[in-house]
Amino acid sequence: MSNPFFKNHGPFNVSDVVKFLEIEKDLLNNNQQIKDIKDLNTSSNSDITFFHSKKYTELAKKTKASFCITTDALKNELPKSCVPLIVQNVLLSVSKITSMFYPDAINDEFDDTATYIDETKFKEKVIFGKNVLIGKNVSIGTNCKIGHNAIIEKNVCIGNDCLIGSNTIIRNSLISNNVKVLDNCVVGKFGFGFFPSKIKNLRYPHIGIVIIEENCEIGCGSTIDRGSMSNTVIGKNTYLDNQVHIAHNVKIGENSIIAGQVGIAGSSNIGSNVRIGGQAGISGHIKVGNNVEIGGGSGVIKNIPENTKVMGYPAKNIKEFLRDNK
Amino acid sequence: MSNPFFKNHGPFNVSDVVKFLEIEKDLLNNNQQIKDIKDLNTSSNSDITFFHSKKYTELAKKTKASFCITTDALKNELPKSCVPLIVQNVLLSVSKITSMFYPDAINDEFDDTATYIDETKFKEKVIFGKNVLIGKNVSIGTNCKIGHNAIIEKNVCIGNDCLIGSNTIIRNSLISNNVKVLDNCVVGKFGFGFFPSKIKNLRYPHIGIVIIEENCEIGCGSTIDRGSMSNTVIGKNTYLDNQVHIAHNVKIGENSIIAGQVGIAGSSNIGSNVRIGGQAGISGHIKVGNNVEIGGGSGVIKNIPENTKVMGYPAKNIKEFLRDNK
Amino acid sequence: MSNPFFKNHGPFNVSDVVKFLEIEKDLLNNNQQIKDIKDLNTSSNSDITFFHSKKYTELAKKTKASFCITTDALKNELPKSCVPLIVQNVLLSVSKITSMFYPDAINDEFDDTATYIDETKFKEKVIFGKNVLIGKNVSIGTNCKIGHNAIIEKNVCIGNDCLIGSNTIIRNSLISNNVKVLDNCVVGKFGFGFFPSKIKNLRYPHIGIVIIEENCEIGCGSTIDRGSMSNTVIGKNTYLDNQVHIAHNVKIGENSIIAGQVGIAGSSNIGSNVRIGGQAGISGHIKVGNNVEIGGGSGVIKNIPENTKVMGYPAKNIKEFLRDNK
Repeated sequence: MSNPFFKNHGPFNVSDVVKFLEIEKDLLNNNQQIKDIKDLNTSSNSDITFFHSKKYTELAKKTKASFCITTDALKNELPKSCVPLIVQNVLLSVSKITSMFYPDAINDEFDDTATYIDETKFKEKVIFGKNVLIGKNVSIGTNCKIGHNAIIEKNVCIGNDCLIGSNTIIRNSLISNNVKVLDNCVVGKFGFGFFPSKIKNLRYPHIGIVIIEENCEIGCGSTIDRGSMSNTVIGKNTYLDNQVHIAHNVKIGENSIIAGQVGIAGSSNIGSNVRIGGQAGISGHIKVGNNVEIGGGSGVIKNIPENTKVMGYPAKNIKEFLRDNK
Repeated sequence: MSNPFFKNHGPFNVSDVVKFLEIEKDLLNNNQQIKDIKDLNTSSNSDITFFHSKKYTELAKKTKASFCITTDALKNELPKSCVPLIVQNVLLSVSKITSMFYPDAINDEFDDTATYIDETKFKEKVIFGKNVLIGKNVSIGTNCKIGHNAIIEKNVCIGNDCLIGSNTIIRNSLISNNVKVLDNCVVGKFGFGFFPSKIKNLRYPHIGIVIIEENCEIGCGSTIDRGSMSNTVIGKNTYLDNQVHIAHNVKIGENSIIAGQVGIAGSSNIGSNVRIGGQAGISGHIKVGNNVEIGGGSGVIKNIPENTKVMGYPAKNIKEFLRDNK
Repeated sequence: MSNPFFKNHGPFNVSDVVKFLEIEKDLLNNNQQIKDIKDLNTSSNSDITFFHSKKYTELAKKTKASFCITTDALKNELPKSCVPLIVQNVLLSVSKITSMFYPDAINDEFDDTATYIDETKFKEKVIFGKNVLIGKNVSIGTNCKIGHNAIIEKNVCIGNDCLIGSNTIIRNSLISNNVKVLDNCVVGKFGFGFFPSKIKNLRYPHIGIVIIEENCEIGCGSTIDRGSMSNTVIGKNTYLDNQVHIAHNVKIGENSIIAGQVGIAGSSNIGSNVRIGGQAGISGHIKVGNNVEIGGGSGVIKNIPENTKVMGYPAKNIKEFLRDNK
């Protein structure tokens, strides 16, 4: 379910891929078809994958992909069934090929397919405010309410008994039953992911989506960005207060409580039954275990094991924090 | 003035109350009427109150309420005129009974009574932008301006010479003369208050409102939540910068200055002539005295006496902070 | 280019100026015309300037202004060609005279000249969503897209190939080519600048604008305030993530990357190629050099020399921070 919404413009011949990457001229006449770009362990033999860091060696050895974007130093870890495509910068090349398959996922323009809800099939089914807009490829369950000026852009699936607040914008998202997204939120825009470059940064595509599981509540003015290669996920019955920022690829477990103005940076993984106090920040690529409590204002810059309470900047055991600050 | 806006669906017979709480079967045939639920010291003999912590013993001894939701351990502190209703979890039971009296205060759905301002009596009186919506039970004074796409939902009273910014949403609020609420704010939604529960958290009602006294200014993108049992109050001539979050039940005194991205957690009490630097956070249930200065980025986790300057996380005397960080 | 947008209501006779300031009665019959109020080094001999702090003595000695608002203690530093106007509070007097020349710059009311884009000349030129509003004195280049409910208020110049997100409000701003301002932003409102005063604070005018140079991206829910006497500037190819707050008079260089929920207080100066981690805060009037990296959550309260990495609150060398927090 990594990209239910973005249209795959493939398949492409491998010759097109190597031409686009400006490499490997001996494959220029190879007409083998590539259907999709996927990660090492979900690829099939009709896909292209990528391998950019030693820490994925075990996955690389077992990949079923027929082609792999990688470096000269890593290529020998791949199985014989997988043809390495050697590049200078793996992630930049992955970005280019992803844009080739999913050109729509690189942009985040407003949805010009959106039309007033009272001109759509939802007119009878949904209770809605003034000036509500609905894009293409939207589904909405029973007993939903959508506030004034809300914009449900294309590629959104909303379950039953949901409440979408006024002025809220949603795109590229799956929202389960009984979810409340309060006013002035932006859910599903692309994340803050790009290759920095003097003169003009290069954005990479975001083919992931936002998934909000059942019984969640998202506070006013919050932003939840969609994933780049994976999804951004808010687990069941998790509540976010106002002005929270959830970056791309973040996963949050069930029954967690996240207070106002918290920020969680890209690709971090928060467990279930976690409580995070106001204004705390979690760095990117961090793992926070289940049943963790993080004090308000903390700055978490390393993994937090489950069943612990932390506080401070950088966050440490709360007893230690309180002792050090007596 | 704790609930001028939420309709009281009472009175109820005490038998209905005990049935709803599933307790005290000997009261099941008692038809005594209960008019309202109030706190210990504002209750009259036609009200029900609650008593959940020893620290309110002095108030409990003098309550005039005829009934009190409390525990077995606390019941003997009540006067003979007050019948204790013994429950396991006082606050949860209070929440249930409050919802019984004020069922509308548990939700925060968009106001579907709102209509375009040029279809209302305010058409001639107010200077307004495009697409402005006004709900039921709204009053607006003279010489007010309301920006584009603003939504003044039901239960709002706005004084004279006020400016409401574009895209701003207000509900359940009393706004005095000469107040500016700038663009993209949300004022008066329910607070982040609920009983956590696996599977599905239980929200409690918010029957308090937001009061913004005269000459205040509220910066863009700020959120001010309404109170649960008491009100959220911003005192006269207090200025908030952009992206500030004020949680439910917070009181702020007069002439205070609160810089950008500050967050004040629930039920904290900030004095007059207080200055709070950007991004500072104040924990819940904290008391900050008059004439206090709190440095930018501080995290205040205990009470701050008046006439002091603090900084740091946790916040301490600013001289100490600067000495420790030379 | 300090005030391309605010109409100068001058010239005024110097006699009007001294009457307004209630000073210097011997100038009451002086009909010399003053065209504008400017800072010490940009004034010509038809302007009035101001001098309020010793640290500007070198500039004061060389000013070409014919009049200068200053104090008795500083007046002797001025050249003979410049007549000192002695006041108690220089900045307050400057504020008054600025309001005299630029009365429109003190307010920040919604733009009631704004009208639906399909009633304007931009109807054919721009791709736009529903309910887009455009004020007076707006220009928009080729190939621009403007999202639903966006409000481009008066005094905005947008270059080519720009994207303005839904629900975003822009006023008093120059936006260069290929800039993206994402959803729910507020750009160009007045800053949080005023003279605190019991009973009723006194706002001073903001005659500066916001300049966003080419290839920039501004994340959702961000706020960028316009300058008071100078401009607020975001340099070329600088990217801001969601919920960032940029206060008045801030300058940011080129190719900088500013993560989510960062706040930069008034008049700070950030170099080029700077990276600022999420939730970091920069105090006002700070200088951050080129090629600086500031860790997430940091609080910067003093100048940071170029080519350094800092972290912590208060921010210090990152090696020191990590060593102290092992």
